[in-house]
Amino acid sequence: MTLNALQKQLLPEIESQLKSFLQTLDFGQSQELKAMIRYHMGWEDQVGSQGKRIRPLLTLLSAGAFEGPIHDAMPGAIAIEYLHNFTLIHDDIEDESPIRHGRPTLWKKWGLAQSVNAGDALFSIAQLAMLNLQNTCDQAVTLLAIKEFNQTCLHLTRGQFLDIAFESSQNVSIDTYLDMIEGKTAALIAFSTILGGLTSHQDELHTNLLGEFGSSLGMAFQIQDDYLGVWGDPQKTGKSAATDLLTRKKTLPILFGLQHSREFRDFWENKQILAENVDAFASMLIACGAQNFVKTKAEYFTERAFTTLHTLFPAENDHSKALFEMTEILLNRNF
Amino acid sequence: MTLNALQKQLLPEIESQLKSFLQTLDFGQSQELKAMIRYHMGWEDQVGSQGKRIRPLLTLLSAGAFEGPIHDAMPGAIAIEYLHNFTLIHDDIEDESPIRHGRPTLWKKWGLAQSVNAGDALFSIAQLAMLNLQNTCDQAVTLLAIKEFNQTCLHLTRGQFLDIAFESSQNVSIDTYLDMIEGKTAALIAFSTILGGLTSHQDELHTNLLGEFGSSLGMAFQIQDDYLGVWGDPQKTGKSAATDLLTRKKTLPILFGLQHSREFRDFWENKQILAENVDAFASMLIACGAQNFVKTKAEYFTERAFTTLHTLFPAENDHSKALFEMTEILLNRNF
Repeated sequence: MTLNALQKQLLPEIESQLKSFLQTLDFGQSQELKAMIRYHMGWEDQVGSQGKRIRPLLTLLSAGAFEGPIHDAMPGAIAIEYLHNFTLIHDDIEDESPIRHGRPTLWKKWGLAQSVNAGDALFSIAQLAMLNLQNTCDQAVTLLAIKEFNQTCLHLTRGQFLDIAFESSQNVSIDTYLDMIEGKTAALIAFSTILGGLTSHQDELHTNLLGEFGSSLGMAFQIQDDYLGVWGDPQKTGKSAATDLLTRKKTLPILFGLQHSREFRDFWENKQILAENVDAFASMLIACGAQNFVKTKAEYFTERAFTTLHTLFPAENDHSKALFEMTEILLNRNF
Repeated sequence: MTLNALQKQLLPEIESQLKSFLQTLDFGQSQELKAMIRYHMGWEDQVGSQGKRIRPLLTLLSAGAFEGPIHDAMPGAIAIEYLHNFTLIHDDIEDESPIRHGRPTLWKKWGLAQSVNAGDALFSIAQLAMLNLQNTCDQAVTLLAIKEFNQTCLHLTRGQFLDIAFESSQNVSIDTYLDMIEGKTAALIAFSTILGGLTSHQDELHTNLLGEFGSSLGMAFQIQDDYLGVWGDPQKTGKSAATDLLTRKKTLPILFGLQHSREFRDFWENKQILAENVDAFASMLIACGAQNFVKTKAEYFTERAFTTLHTLFPAENDHSKALFEMTEILLNRNF
């Protein structure tokens, strides 16, 4: 069975479990709060996508790759998707983003106060979903998974703290930046894979290795994203060329440039970046070695993701094959 | 031992456990996020109070009233105080409150984005604290407590949803209002007492009764607060007379007035409420029966709180005596 076939089977199941878990919860006189959550999850209208549900899929495939009964991981997979969506609600508020999945964001539609609160509700719902692991795993595994889950939540807020702080900071070191994306992106992907290990009763060594795979996948994906934000082909990325330069987003190539090229720093600090001169900026970044640096970093984490996968699953089954395939798709975008 | 003596013993322990748990957590390069939490908890300066830590005290006294080893409940007591403080951070954002405990609120000092995120961090920390119940109770009790904890969290957001919705609503029914304060105030106090029952291994009947006591205490306290917001003695409440009328806060007496007195509704909708005419508003509320209604409601829940306590603890020990005393102090303010 290919990734495609497994996705066709698992994605509708994930969606249906997400919906039905919400139905079990009592919203009393606050039905509109439930409607807000349904809207954010993409269930209230036909416009826009619902998100790709990559994280729960990673959990189920990881469990299956260990020959575990993948449905034992389902309550945790659901919880992770809820958690991810809670972070999106609050991130959109913190970044003042008006649009997500082609729809107005929750705070644009319901205002700030109700949306901070709806995010908190979804966070609580994610925690309640985790507790359903008791129905598929034993109490010890459930408690261990809940601990990892909440350590991940704290990790996410550490990453988000740095991300917000960077907005107003002129000097962000490469190490601190990598620490930020590790918290913001890699930590939750790592937990998604770790959970597959925990629910299929793997020992600490294998579970940690799975986490290393997930973390490397997350890091590689984000660093690629940073690369594509400057040098991506607009036809393939669906964004305008050099979009991160035009929006002055301090991503990895730009931070490298600021630290290694006085010329780039001078331009960055004193010139407006416009469609007319953006190529000059991008070329300066190539000249100072930023492109090479970012590509090498992305390749390092990509390599690490694949090596770890090979170590973990030398003998292939349908789920591990799908996991390889998914990693290839996620990390083979436009280099 | 009186309440006073027990408080002298327990409050420093609670404070020290709160502080030391935070110390065990890894904040990596996001040390300022930790400083934000310390600031909110009242540990970063000498100005203002730290909050009364009423909820963890209720947990410990409830456990002790059942002759349980009160320290078994401590991890949960700590978690509840963290949870309560997380809700305060987000409530202050949602209500745009500039001051708490005599200090600028977190969002006033660090801005909206960082403070939404710091609230999320504190929510995660509360969840991690709950997991330490494993060190004092068995896994089944821990999981049960975590479930109740998160159902309470969801309940809080339902209450908060209604509270925010009321701001812009002209017609709030008494029942919906009571549902709101049940979620916003009573649910967490109920959980504080329930946790004392769970950790001292009480059966469902006793745990539920404890929750009924906590819920009644919370309802009575809030309804008294509403009463005092209109008719409280400024010398005793520390607030200006009829403060809720002056700030046009839609509390229970005001909602009753709007529904039962055309004269009051007319005044409310068409006149400015000023120090000069506020007495006329307050008198209208007395005339239409609002004062009597609110007093009767407060007395109903007060009575229910005490009756439940008597049923639960017919034989007194130090902790149940302190629980009675604390209930008396909380509910015997200014009638």
